[in-house]
Amino acid sequence: MNKVLLLIENGFEDTEAMYPYYRMQEAGLEVHVVGPSKGTFHGKYGYPLRADMTPADCDLEEVAAVIIPGGHAPDRMRTRPDMVRLVREAVERGIVVGAICHGPLLLIEAGVLRGRCATCYSGIRSDLADAGALYEDSKVVVDRNIVTSRIPSDLPAFAGTLVAMVQKKTTQPEKVGG
Amino acid sequence: MNKVLLLIENGFEDTEAMYPYYRMQEAGLEVHVVGPSKGTFHGKYGYPLRADMTPADCDLEEVAAVIIPGGHAPDRMRTRPDMVRLVREAVERGIVVGAICHGPLLLIEAGVLRGRCATCYSGIRSDLADAGALYEDSKVVVDRNIVTSRIPSDLPAFAGTLVAMVQKKTTQPEKVGG
Repeated sequence: MNKVLLLIENGFEDTEAMYPYYRMQEAGLEVHVVGPSKGTFHGKYGYPLRADMTPADCDLEEVAAVIIPGGHAPDRMRTRPDMVRLVREAVERGIVVGAICHGPLLLIEAGVLRGRCATCYSGIRSDLADAGALYEDSKVVVDRNIVTSRIPSDLPAFAGTLVAMVQKKTTQPEKVGG
Repeated sequence: MNKVLLLIENGFEDTEAMYPYYRMQEAGLEVHVVGPSKGTFHGKYGYPLRADMTPADCDLEEVAAVIIPGGHAPDRMRTRPDMVRLVREAVERGIVVGAICHGPLLLIEAGVLRGRCATCYSGIRSDLADAGALYEDSKVVVDRNIVTSRIPSDLPAFAGTLVAMVQKKTTQPEKVGG
């Protein structure tokens, strides 16, 4: 239960991927980078990050959190049924799922936002509302196991919240369900 | 005493600047980005970061830590007497000074490494030794107020150590001197 999955594709917002990547390691968690294939992907500015797993390799039993950075990557990931399925299953199992900036596009595609409070990059605010979410303009919004943020400067609040939720979960008896 | 200075120039290693930038904010500290001039600088991969101060604007009285990321930036910063002086004064005052990767070039230039244990990117190891430092191949080396690391994957240890040292310092009575 100490694993974290960071979902990427080419075009991820560099810091929105790299900050949680190292932050979760700093918190003592084992971070796995999940891509459409194994190998190196590049951020919007070209920062390289190696995916060591694909969705087919993921066993959610051992996963404490799933994190979805923004940038152009979520627009690509939402077209992959295996990525979308992974996100839906994680939310349904009550795993902490964090999405920032354009990351909530994957939550929309997974159909998990109806009636849930959430935030996102301002440009996709209408899509979030159309998917049934209750939009809030805050640096971090927590609705049960779904954690969302808007922009890179929200990263301290976003990551701090994720670390606190995961640590609370990994030190308490397991509960299944959102 | 809750201010952190992050020293940059063009070509900073993107994550080595951005991780401490947000991590120190997450720890409740006020981060100021110090450049050769005010304005936006770009990392090795092009990530933008705005400097809001120059060395002339810095009052070390209120500073808890100075952080020097790697990349090509330290090679530029070491040619600027005001940057070098800032680093030397910070070390002499006992302020926590962290440098990662090529960042220790600025410590070499400031002449503060003689007899101190330190680490750095492997390529500048000889320079570190020639400057009188005792090189150690560890992910983070602490010698009194000087904290050094080698590469981006050391960032969790580097930042975790800096946060712990600054928090210890900001909650204890002030001591002057290294």
